[in-house]
Amino acid sequence: MKKQEANLKARELVKQMTREEKVSQMLYTAPAIERLGLPAYNWWNEALHGVARAGLSTVFPQSIALSASYDPQILNDVGSVVGEEGRLKNRIYRSREDRGIYKGLTYWSPNINIVRDPRWGRGHESYGEDPCLNAIMGVAFVKGIQEYRDPSMKDKGLQAAACAKHFAVHSGPEGIRHGFDSKATPKELSETYLPAFEKLVKDADVAGVMSSYNAVNGVPTSASSFLLRETLRDKWGFEGYTVSDCGAISDIYHHHHYKDTLSEAAAAAVEGGCDLNCGNMYGHLLEALEKGQLEEKYVDEAVERLLTIRFMLDMDEDPQPEKAMEEWVGKLREWKQLNRRIAESCIVLLKNDGILPLKEAPETIAIVGPDAAVHTVLEGNYHGTAADYVTVAKGIAEVYPESNLLISEGAHLYKDRVENCSPLPGDRISEAAAFASFADVTFAVVGLDPCIEGEAGDASNEYAAGDKHDLHLPASQQAMLEAVCEASDNVVVILMSGGALELGNLNDKVRAVIQGWYPGSEGGRAIANVICGKVNPTGRLPLTFYYNEQVSWDFSDYHTDGKTYRFFKGKPLYPFGFGIGYEYLTMESARRKGNSVYVDLKNQLDHPVAMPLQLYVKAEEEGLETPNFQLVAVNKILLEPGQKTTAVLEADPFWTMVVEEDGTRRPCRGKLTFFVGDHQPDERSEELCRQQGRQSCIRPDLL
Amino acid sequence: MKKQEANLKARELVKQMTREEKVSQMLYTAPAIERLGLPAYNWWNEALHGVARAGLSTVFPQSIALSASYDPQILNDVGSVVGEEGRLKNRIYRSREDRGIYKGLTYWSPNINIVRDPRWGRGHESYGEDPCLNAIMGVAFVKGIQEYRDPSMKDKGLQAAACAKHFAVHSGPEGIRHGFDSKATPKELSETYLPAFEKLVKDADVAGVMSSYNAVNGVPTSASSFLLRETLRDKWGFEGYTVSDCGAISDIYHHHHYKDTLSEAAAAAVEGGCDLNCGNMYGHLLEALEKGQLEEKYVDEAVERLLTIRFMLDMDEDPQPEKAMEEWVGKLREWKQLNRRIAESCIVLLKNDGILPLKEAPETIAIVGPDAAVHTVLEGNYHGTAADYVTVAKGIAEVYPESNLLISEGAHLYKDRVENCSPLPGDRISEAAAFASFADVTFAVVGLDPCIEGEAGDASNEYAAGDKHDLHLPASQQAMLEAVCEASDNVVVILMSGGALELGNLNDKVRAVIQGWYPGSEGGRAIANVICGKVNPTGRLPLTFYYNEQVSWDFSDYHTDGKTYRFFKGKPLYPFGFGIGYEYLTMESARRKGNSVYVDLKNQLDHPVAMPLQLYVKAEEEGLETPNFQLVAVNKILLEPGQKTTAVLEADPFWTMVVEEDGTRRPCRGKLTFFVGDHQPDERSEELCRQQGRQSCIRPDLL
Repeated sequence: MKKQEANLKARELVKQMTREEKVSQMLYTAPAIERLGLPAYNWWNEALHGVARAGLSTVFPQSIALSASYDPQILNDVGSVVGEEGRLKNRIYRSREDRGIYKGLTYWSPNINIVRDPRWGRGHESYGEDPCLNAIMGVAFVKGIQEYRDPSMKDKGLQAAACAKHFAVHSGPEGIRHGFDSKATPKELSETYLPAFEKLVKDADVAGVMSSYNAVNGVPTSASSFLLRETLRDKWGFEGYTVSDCGAISDIYHHHHYKDTLSEAAAAAVEGGCDLNCGNMYGHLLEALEKGQLEEKYVDEAVERLLTIRFMLDMDEDPQPEKAMEEWVGKLREWKQLNRRIAESCIVLLKNDGILPLKEAPETIAIVGPDAAVHTVLEGNYHGTAADYVTVAKGIAEVYPESNLLISEGAHLYKDRVENCSPLPGDRISEAAAFASFADVTFAVVGLDPCIEGEAGDASNEYAAGDKHDLHLPASQQAMLEAVCEASDNVVVILMSGGALELGNLNDKVRAVIQGWYPGSEGGRAIANVICGKVNPTGRLPLTFYYNEQVSWDFSDYHTDGKTYRFFKGKPLYPFGFGIGYEYLTMESARRKGNSVYVDLKNQLDHPVAMPLQLYVKAEEEGLETPNFQLVAVNKILLEPGQKTTAVLEADPFWTMVVEEDGTRRPCRGKLTFFVGDHQPDERSEELCRQQGRQSCIRPDLL
Repeated sequence: MKKQEANLKARELVKQMTREEKVSQMLYTAPAIERLGLPAYNWWNEALHGVARAGLSTVFPQSIALSASYDPQILNDVGSVVGEEGRLKNRIYRSREDRGIYKGLTYWSPNINIVRDPRWGRGHESYGEDPCLNAIMGVAFVKGIQEYRDPSMKDKGLQAAACAKHFAVHSGPEGIRHGFDSKATPKELSETYLPAFEKLVKDADVAGVMSSYNAVNGVPTSASSFLLRETLRDKWGFEGYTVSDCGAISDIYHHHHYKDTLSEAAAAAVEGGCDLNCGNMYGHLLEALEKGQLEEKYVDEAVERLLTIRFMLDMDEDPQPEKAMEEWVGKLREWKQLNRRIAESCIVLLKNDGILPLKEAPETIAIVGPDAAVHTVLEGNYHGTAADYVTVAKGIAEVYPESNLLISEGAHLYKDRVENCSPLPGDRISEAAAFASFADVTFAVVGLDPCIEGEAGDASNEYAAGDKHDLHLPASQQAMLEAVCEASDNVVVILMSGGALELGNLNDKVRAVIQGWYPGSEGGRAIANVICGKVNPTGRLPLTFYYNEQVSWDFSDYHTDGKTYRFFKGKPLYPFGFGIGYEYLTMESARRKGNSVYVDLKNQLDHPVAMPLQLYVKAEEEGLETPNFQLVAVNKILLEPGQKTTAVLEADPFWTMVVEEDGTRRPCRGKLTFFVGDHQPDERSEELCRQQGRQSCIRPDLL
């Protein structure tokens, strides 16, 4: 139902509830209150890139890959499938009285933290290192989840509920996240860490916000009234629910030592503005109320907000499971196709000496590396279960059905040998090298997977926490790749990772590099379609790919200077915004009117071509430090053969503003310079463009 | 080179070796002796059902499944691919100076232990519970590995070396294998535990024999001159090499406490007849020699035998890796096809109320269960890496491309919930039940996998050792299957396991049961081809499928009475030798002449039909206990439409003999009754045949 009606109903219900009943509803495992007709509800659900952890669903590319599409429509499509598929699944579960975890409609996605540091294991859950891109993608995704597309449903409330996390200033290190204190200045908060949250609240009306594990400037975020009340509600007008990260309220006591007792820690969280506890600390709230550590009005308002969301989700309607199954079955093929097209839009070609596209089927193909034939690398983390997984090896087999395929694991993902019994390391290297030496072309599918690049506690190996130590390939794979490059001059690297990696001296030796990310269940097919040229790669990096030695700062330093393309001074390996196509639209001219830029584009080729346009702005103002050129708008344009258009890139004035030392965001009083292209206007991007024989895009001095 | 020439060369070389050099060659990691031109060699390699643990290879069905084909030609084909593919791989490795583990040509396969107890985790490595079937299959496999098929190679020595293991009286419990003492009478040894080894030595000239971990009647087998010298060499004429199971010589000291010092334990093994040490205990042999605990002549003869095998393998030839790669690539597709055809021959249909074959594509198919979509269950243990794996779900998708597929894991393989975070067990059951309820037909792919049914130490879960506790499905899966059977009346169970399981009260509820085993990388395709009727199932059980309560004996009791179909008195769920086809050849008459039985067969259908004939004999003799009807010969017959033939089943007189209490095997002085059919002549098989509307096969009283 609509928000206002839901809120009224919630308010009435809260009035009828006992203190015990109210407190019980603030746990994520909210029990039924039968006398009031309120069923049990488990709030915890996940849908980072498709409905997760509850069986069959559409497993889209991981968030970072989706962001690489530079196309918010794709995020909206993914969100929309989440909402629709999730709702169908919820009806089926409810019809069987399954109200367990991951079965509800409150999704704790998206993750819009800034990838401040390329080593952060959870960077791939986010849309990257740029606040504007994070916001654009996040807004599109949240709207997709929350808004019904079916016009007949416009009068309903929420299709499903999204939740922006982790609020705020949260990006590792994973190993110390439960007691970590992130230090950031007011300017850094306003300029980098908070904007995406602000936009999701203001532009997408996101239903939930999740506090993080860490403290910010000394205050645990789950008890921070500065963040959860003053900023979120008073300043931005947020009306949804807040939830702690799982275990974060326990951290207030156990790791931050911010309060002396468990009940005071729980009370501090509620008073700070945290409505729902993922964990069981709110079991201490009765004690806190009895001891006068908390006023009951805070409990009342929290429960009211929680019930409002539940009522907006209309979970009491007749589930009609047979009809839900029919609808779902009717959608499966369509969503699978959509998933492949989306994956194709996410692949980023980083290097190509001309070997790609490989239009003619080679007689023999070697496919080597531990990520070539496993489905885990397609999934990312927080994933569902696909009906079918197309690995890279499988995808290549599909596009070259006549070629002989020689497939070798080559190396363990990170251990120095594949067979535990082997007395010697590198026990698959000779096979991989032999295959490479014999084959006409070798695809080295190397990188990480979500069990070594992920969340603390998820990591099932000696890395202990999920962060990367550095940007190198694991030594096992680097050694394999060296042998393979020695055996063959025709090596194409497909990098599977959620963030920046670099190949060291092999970067020059290999003929092409494709950034494959964690590309979803159709990912191998998408990558193969790029390889053979069925698909023109149009993905661009939502992250800076640094040389490893450029990342010399302390991982726990949250000050922004020198970090991310907006503040970085050096020339990275591959810049934020960068990516190569096989072909491009022709940009003929561009002009600016206020914050809008108009670009005349033409497709001079004989088939449809797409190109992701990016608009950057550099603000300059006397006496104020401003970031480098930074992204303010994106627009992915697809033109039919011979078609012309004038593309518009309109920068939200929010993004062209400058931020003062005290955090005030206001219009720039100096000069704004605009640049439009399919990359950012940094020296390295220009250099890489020239290497590809491209003249640069429209120059900033034109605008 | 040929044995005699190799032996001469070995003898000459041993004469030139120092004591240290000789002892060094008795370790499985034999170092190079450069002054004598002898390269390093790692003896340990595996090829139970395809070349294992060394990267790309053809991954055939697990041994127990191969045995279910009742077709020795298939075992010969698999062995032949092992020899050929292994040799090509060895050439490629040698060309790169990779002489590591699993890269040589001495395969420690097959496992021909008798599956005395259905709980034994390694039962699936063997050919089942029958000595004759184990021998027939083992002989065919060993010949396939060792003999070149190419006539131009007939003058060469060994294509590769097989090794019969584990000698002897070895079949669990896995958890106590390192110090276990198997008790068996002389009659039991001759009648049940030793015959398959004897046949592999005498009929297949197997190159190696591996001693087991356990002791037999008080003597560790790796130090048992009764087994390794008197029986194996003196009585059977074995001329190959012997090797300890890995770590078994250490067990002589550490677990059997059979000797007081490490050097005496090592000396006892060599004196007992164990030539090669998988482990490092023979590092103590120098000390043993110096202390006079061992005579050097034992070392000399061991090294001579080891070098003879190495020279017979011709591993000094020019490896010509380019040529080897070409040959290999030329074979890959052919072997993949062969693998599928072989897998099809292994599938056993146990129950069918007429639902199968499912010729018309259902509109919607549910596929539920933890074994449906994972490739681990295809592999079995001791496996290689296939270029491609076709799971059951994938196979079904291939044969019904137009059907809607709903795939649910349904349950964890053995844990009570799929998602660790779930507060409640059974968190995928509602999905599986909903799918079953909606679909036209449901395939429940349940059972085990090699990580919970396998070898001690391999098992990566709470089961600790790899044995089964009982014959029930894991509780997680039983609960899921119950819900699925409640939701649907059209459930077909596909049991993935290496041995007997039973479904309890659900056995009556489900419409069909297919025993899928661990069917190799093409296994899902094979199972799907049986389901849709492209393939008529012709596999038969090489094991008794008991009701769980019938297995009431102590797992560690090796006395044979009441165990396996040869001694069991009850009516099992599915008997040894049993399996249903969709169609059969017509058996018109049969007659016997001595040990040979002639059967007139006719194909009255309009397409080719195969049927696995089995010949059983019951020996009766006054004053001597004899087994039940036991298998003495097999012959799988394929006839074209309208074709007639007279099939011959010739029992090797070895198998129709009786065994006295002292272990003497001699011709029967009483009555031999023969039975021929596609099952054994027990009451339960007859009952099951009648249920299928079949008249029984040829009666024993006819012969």
